[in-house]
Amino acid sequence: MLGAGFAGLHVAKGLRRAPVRVTLIDRQNHHLFQPMLYQVATAALSPGDIASPVRAVLRRNANVDVLLAEARTVDVAARAVTLSTGRSIQYDYLVVATGARHSYFGHDEWERLAPGLKDLEDALEIRRKVLLAFERAEQETDPDRRAVLLNFVIVGGGPTGVELAGAIAELRRYTLRKDFRNVNPREARVLLVEAGPRILSTYPEELSRKATEHLGRLGVEVRTGAIVTDIGADCVVAGGARIATETVIWAAGNVASPLLGSIDTARDRQGRALVLPDCSLPEHPDVFVLGDAAAFVHQTGDPLPGVCQVAMQMGDHVARIITTESRHETVAADRPAFHYRDKGSLAVIGRGRAVGEVKGAHVTGFVAWLTWIFVHIFFLIGFRNRIIVMAEWAISYFTFSRGARLITGPATWPEPGR
Amino acid sequence: MLGAGFAGLHVAKGLRRAPVRVTLIDRQNHHLFQPMLYQVATAALSPGDIASPVRAVLRRNANVDVLLAEARTVDVAARAVTLSTGRSIQYDYLVVATGARHSYFGHDEWERLAPGLKDLEDALEIRRKVLLAFERAEQETDPDRRAVLLNFVIVGGGPTGVELAGAIAELRRYTLRKDFRNVNPREARVLLVEAGPRILSTYPEELSRKATEHLGRLGVEVRTGAIVTDIGADCVVAGGARIATETVIWAAGNVASPLLGSIDTARDRQGRALVLPDCSLPEHPDVFVLGDAAAFVHQTGDPLPGVCQVAMQMGDHVARIITTESRHETVAADRPAFHYRDKGSLAVIGRGRAVGEVKGAHVTGFVAWLTWIFVHIFFLIGFRNRIIVMAEWAISYFTFSRGARLITGPATWPEPGR
Repeated sequence: MLGAGFAGLHVAKGLRRAPVRVTLIDRQNHHLFQPMLYQVATAALSPGDIASPVRAVLRRNANVDVLLAEARTVDVAARAVTLSTGRSIQYDYLVVATGARHSYFGHDEWERLAPGLKDLEDALEIRRKVLLAFERAEQETDPDRRAVLLNFVIVGGGPTGVELAGAIAELRRYTLRKDFRNVNPREARVLLVEAGPRILSTYPEELSRKATEHLGRLGVEVRTGAIVTDIGADCVVAGGARIATETVIWAAGNVASPLLGSIDTARDRQGRALVLPDCSLPEHPDVFVLGDAAAFVHQTGDPLPGVCQVAMQMGDHVARIITTESRHETVAADRPAFHYRDKGSLAVIGRGRAVGEVKGAHVTGFVAWLTWIFVHIFFLIGFRNRIIVMAEWAISYFTFSRGARLITGPATWPEPGR
Repeated sequence: MLGAGFAGLHVAKGLRRAPVRVTLIDRQNHHLFQPMLYQVATAALSPGDIASPVRAVLRRNANVDVLLAEARTVDVAARAVTLSTGRSIQYDYLVVATGARHSYFGHDEWERLAPGLKDLEDALEIRRKVLLAFERAEQETDPDRRAVLLNFVIVGGGPTGVELAGAIAELRRYTLRKDFRNVNPREARVLLVEAGPRILSTYPEELSRKATEHLGRLGVEVRTGAIVTDIGADCVVAGGARIATETVIWAAGNVASPLLGSIDTARDRQGRALVLPDCSLPEHPDVFVLGDAAAFVHQTGDPLPGVCQVAMQMGDHVARIITTESRHETVAADRPAFHYRDKGSLAVIGRGRAVGEVKGAHVTGFVAWLTWIFVHIFFLIGFRNRIIVMAEWAISYFTFSRGARLITGPATWPEPGR
């Protein structure tokens, strides 16, 4: 089994009573609660708060071996996976749940200038960039340069982009307000740039409007219909307009894990494997592809969205299939199809502000925000993380401060004139 | 003022009502609670738990400017400090509190193989090395190689070495016990190697003996009188004996910050500036050197130890001198001498185990451990950190688990045969 994200963990846990040995391979030693990653990027939480060691999560699953390694290639004919450690592992069933990376639509050179947000390293890099921008502005004597340093541009108006924009706007407005002497963090501009006609395009139109309103009240400028055509060291060109900035964050596109390239199967534009209704690959009933790595199009015509709910439900589904078949020692001809039950979706915009849909009903404002908090605490893996995150949030809520405002990694920038 | 450690912060805070402008320069944006750093290195706490943004700590000190930069050189004649950003800053008083780095006694090539523990990056690197050793052992099929991977050697039996050894022994014994399938973490050996005749040499002999006893019960092998003569990629030579290991941690020697090299003044063997009884430099009453960067020898003949109590008290002392003189606009001819009041010292050896001296009385075991906890929570800077650390400790104590077992940075190792 490849990948210890939501899909992978749900398969591993679901196989607890199946007569199989599970080898779970991931290149990180921790499962990451990705929906809260933007809070690490904006200094509200520490990496340890939203990540749990995979071994600890699966401690009681005696039939699971956890291996820290990267899967390099899959040989579906030989039923084997080659690892970065040089080892090769045979399988009876293979579950590929290796997720996605950001896509720069052919402009890979933008990655260095506009980091995306997928793992803890990304989040720490974004945190470093944002906090350093304020530190640099504090020491800048030229007011024009200072304004450039205090422009923050987020590319992509999906949930991640909206949550990042809201969180940076709040960081600036509440948290950093009293900390600087020469810059007024309120001078900082936060721009959210979206290529499509509206932000949160997968949500109903009314919620997009509400979200734009909420962001506006926090001081975020939302520019829709603005396709990014260039990113340089000191600017972004979006919708034809040049925006001077040195801090760009990428939340625009995804592409499925490159591992899928080693399997000869049909893929969509985003590199996701087109799966059958049971989540297996055509002609390879022993290979399942789940979560963000899969394009599942059987219910609505559109592929299911890359959210953790889909991944978890797919994981449960596949675990049931494998459990049944391994008990009967046969591959069933009529496997049950996967049906996604959408429990709703929520995007947080700031302190006490969120928008979303829960069981078909639109929720906004404080109620949506509280719902988000409870749902996320509930799904957060690990008792310790729940206690610590609740404490962090409670302190932040009442004190407007953020605990994790550390710059780690190089706390320097190019010296002037070099 | 250079350095936002304990000494620097105490000067800055002590100058709150003085008619001066303070510029506090540090190359990190956070103050680090160094006495608890070993807990980050051994995955008990997250970096954010023991570090506070300097700006936030000094938010209410309106006369303090915080600059994120590294001081490169000091020109005492021109009364100016040159920064890494190219800027030069004039001073009326200069406070040098830039601390110390580890010293490899002329073997700088050991640094790469045996990281020391001074800042958050160091702690994360040690955490990565220790956790990766277990992951590698889990995948190792050769039992001899596995034994090598599970040998942990700590060089230096001072408080840091003792605390690290105890914490790694506990990590192995309690936390990782159920997490691995192929290795038994209890097989791991933890060796504490000390060149002198006993560990905790600055403590009374009885406490050294107690500490050795406590460590022995946790399964730590203590080797005294063992001078390290070589460190290689897969071994340490200590006291003439070769110990096969790939995980060595350096807790043996310190050398004062290299910045002092740019000041023409007398220094001791460890590079610390020899200061006058008022903590200023001979012939430079406007330059104070504090904390680990200073050799203060006026009370006992031995220099004061490099602990945070000394640094804090020196900071308070210098703040009082500068406050008085700035109010009278004169340099006093008869400055008061600094007197260190030793409130005691404690070293934690494990869960419920510590040794130390408080106001002349020896304390050991559970009482010493509880005292350590309360003293450290009390001095920990920031309300948020206190709450979170108490919660983390309470959960660890009752569940034997550790929250921060993340491997960040490259989670890989050289492939076999390369």
